[in-house]
Amino acid sequence: MTPIYRVAQLAQELLYNRINAGDLVMDATMGNGYDTLFLWKRVQPTGKVIAFDVQQHAIYQTKKVLINNGWKEQDPTVELILDSHSHFAKYAYKPLKAVMFNLGYLPGSDKEVSTSWPGIKCVLDQLVHHYLEVGGYISIVSYSGHEEGKTEQTELLTYVRNLTSKSWGVMEIIRSNAVESAPKLIIIVRKE
Amino acid sequence: MTPIYRVAQLAQELLYNRINAGDLVMDATMGNGYDTLFLWKRVQPTGKVIAFDVQQHAIYQTKKVLINNGWKEQDPTVELILDSHSHFAKYAYKPLKAVMFNLGYLPGSDKEVSTSWPGIKCVLDQLVHHYLEVGGYISIVSYSGHEEGKTEQTELLTYVRNLTSKSWGVMEIIRSNAVESAPKLIIIVRKE
Repeated sequence: MTPIYRVAQLAQELLYNRINAGDLVMDATMGNGYDTLFLWKRVQPTGKVIAFDVQQHAIYQTKKVLINNGWKEQDPTVELILDSHSHFAKYAYKPLKAVMFNLGYLPGSDKEVSTSWPGIKCVLDQLVHHYLEVGGYISIVSYSGHEEGKTEQTELLTYVRNLTSKSWGVMEIIRSNAVESAPKLIIIVRKE
Repeated sequence: MTPIYRVAQLAQELLYNRINAGDLVMDATMGNGYDTLFLWKRVQPTGKVIAFDVQQHAIYQTKKVLINNGWKEQDPTVELILDSHSHFAKYAYKPLKAVMFNLGYLPGSDKEVSTSWPGIKCVLDQLVHHYLEVGGYISIVSYSGHEEGKTEQTELLTYVRNLTSKSWGVMEIIRSNAVESAPKLIIIVRKE
């Protein structure tokens, strides 16, 4: 078992049994591709992962990780999309079962390119209003170690705390005894 | 899958793959026996559950739940102990792999009998100093809907936030969009 306090891995652990073959799922922040790989393993051979990043390097890296794990480049169960996640609705042919975000910078890349609250809010609004399946999940790993991350996290927490509890289960998972800037995990489930 | 936002069930889900046959584990608050049953299924046939409650009714209820699920009354893989959990060290023949707490009142019973911070602190101190295995877990479901619960939770959170992060992973899992008094889940893991 991976350490329970590594929240990016905990997100995968919590979603593991809640995603099935045939589901449509999204990696909203491809980065190094580990969530795309995780999602692909769960939904194949009949489902699909749509994965987004605005950096060519992320596409390259994710493709490498997938191929190293048995994916064939023409296999339509993954679509790697060089575009903002805010345009995901163009690619969603049915309601999504799960959406994963890992916010902040792409590790080892240009620190000028980071996620931003307006873009994330745009995705969340669309998911909340239309695109998430009943019983579907959103996981978000949020960092506050950099200035933009701090603002992003504050806005994000305000947003999710205001989702009505009748329709939405919202969990916040934090490391109680770590530094203030330790990443937080947010899990949202659509109840009805 | 049970709803992810039911924290008592989430505690079981997170511990499921982290407890193995042969482990010594403890249900610190037997109550209706559901954690005892869960733990027993994980550690049998070679491990053991020591389960505590100060109310005879909890022993009766837990015994019923276990027997309904295939336990035989003489089977030494479960020991139901009518005593304060603060005396657990008498029964721990080796370091514990997991300890579960579900604080507050025994459902459907005498509301005068509830857990208290001094008793819980006594157990935690012993676990932290001696009795928890490296890689072992403590899960605590804490309620703040009643006055004693509020104090208990405040003291508990202060305690766990002060565990050194070098040796202890501590996670707090809260329902962000529920009422303030919604139960919180705390998971502690001994790293070294």
